[in-house]
Amino acid sequence: MKELVREITVSWAHCDAAGIVFYPNFYIWFDQATEHLFSENSLSYEELEQEFNISGMPLVENGTEYMNACKLGTRLIMTSRVDEWARKTFIVKHRVEHSNGKIALEGFERRVMVIKDPTSEWGIKAIDVPEEIRCRFSR
Amino acid sequence: MKELVREITVSWAHCDAAGIVFYPNFYIWFDQATEHLFSENSLSYEELEQEFNISGMPLVENGTEYMNACKLGTRLIMTSRVDEWARKTFIVKHRVEHSNGKIALEGFERRVMVIKDPTSEWGIKAIDVPEEIRCRFSR
Amino acid sequence: MKELVREITVSWAHCDAAGIVFYPNFYIWFDQATEHLFSENSLSYEELEQEFNISGMPLVENGTEYMNACKLGTRLIMTSRVDEWARKTFIVKHRVEHSNGKIALEGFERRVMVIKDPTSEWGIKAIDVPEEIRCRFSR
Amino acid sequence: MKELVREITVSWAHCDAAGIVFYPNFYIWFDQATEHLFSENSLSYEELEQEFNISGMPLVENGTEYMNACKLGTRLIMTSRVDEWARKTFIVKHRVEHSNGKIALEGFERRVMVIKDPTSEWGIKAIDVPEEIRCRFSR
Repeated sequence: MKELVREITVSWAHCDAAGIVFYPNFYIWFDQATEHLFSENSLSYEELEQEFNISGMPLVENGTEYMNACKLGTRLIMTSRVDEWARKTFIVKHRVEHSNGKIALEGFERRVMVIKDPTSEWGIKAIDVPEEIRCRFSR
Repeated sequence: MKELVREITVSWAHCDAAGIVFYPNFYIWFDQATEHLFSENSLSYEELEQEFNISGMPLVENGTEYMNACKLGTRLIMTSRVDEWARKTFIVKHRVEHSNGKIALEGFERRVMVIKDPTSEWGIKAIDVPEEIRCRFSR
Repeated sequence: MKELVREITVSWAHCDAAGIVFYPNFYIWFDQATEHLFSENSLSYEELEQEFNISGMPLVENGTEYMNACKLGTRLIMTSRVDEWARKTFIVKHRVEHSNGKIALEGFERRVMVIKDPTSEWGIKAIDVPEEIRCRFSR
Repeated sequence: MKELVREITVSWAHCDAAGIVFYPNFYIWFDQATEHLFSENSLSYEELEQEFNISGMPLVENGTEYMNACKLGTRLIMTSRVDEWARKTFIVKHRVEHSNGKIALEGFERRVMVIKDPTSEWGIKAIDVPEEIRCRFSR
């Protein structure tokens, strides 16, 4: 699966005092969408560990541009895809649109894949993204 | 230390579309206050593990009564104390007051202390609360 | 609609350092389920305002008993229903089960319905639950 | 006040299943720090409204680079300052450091100030940042 499309209705629990989505929630949605996209390609955190010895995908950088606010009760379409595979890092792009096609926001996450490494300070080290993993996203 | 007193100013990040604290945030405050109260008695999660082999304090029950809403910008006083030590469970009570003394809400958490137990389904089991731990709260 | 049933897969974003759902998230789910259950009966916040002049459903009390932890990646079934209509308050019960039928937790919310009242301290006052609203839940 | 410095101890409630701060929490901290920095300059949301007719400071863009993870129990120093005043937008930079001086992460928020405008689609419009507001940050 190349692209994950998810429909979200803005709930009371997402909103701030202006009645629009409080933006840290968008980053929660990004995190969930990335996890979901990988799961759909048989790359859940459990499968990454068991099959590839990968113990996580730490975030290196993220960011978002906000174009149009998302009000309580509105329906949104969120589209997530891996936009770029570098040797050690990869970028997941997330676009949230209103039901009329107007873009609400566009964000990205840059992540690495890590394995355990007892000799390093954090106990982990980044690895080259396995070829097999990239392949699963082009099917 | 018997009682932890913490001052909180309601920020934009705490509020819902009604401009008052979104209530799951109170449970986050409770969790942080319990952790902090234990830390102040040299019972941080790290110390619980190292000194008592305790690997966590899972929640068994919690609940809250809400009397007066907490609006953006108001100052609150939160008071947290262990209210009851049973053999295996203990209750932490949290009271949040407005600066004029009016009670905003009262809540509680009932928790257990667990050690690792590879033979059980969840890998942990509840233990009797160590006498030494209770003592630290009466000093 | 009497009962809302929702399937939830525990994501990374829900979990704490023990790899299980951090419990304030359950209260977020409760809030969303209550909102969703009312929406399904044509009682979204917008509809409550327009049709009944009701400007919100503040929480009076809530609480939860936790039986079995919810680990990363597990599938949960959450069932939500209005359990009791009193004159001015009503109780929504939420039950979360594992896919094998084991109960994870049971919680409730007690709420009131309010209309604007400029003469009161908070600018709102609780009203008797309109008969028409109760009826919609028995269809 | 030019710069807000805040000390944060990483609590259980901040952490994900890897035992480090779940990153949307950093954006919550940013939001709170910006609000606090403005408050310290007598520019709370209430004061912005009353004195300048400004009804909010919507986010236009934000982003963060993550250098070193923040583990449960560690103490962090967060420093926040307005880094740039453009005509209609301004940038707040946030730097989080470990107690040994190592940088954990660096992020920014670009925001605008808005007043009510019933003729526009969203009911608000961005204004030129009032000179008086800029001045308060250089004292």
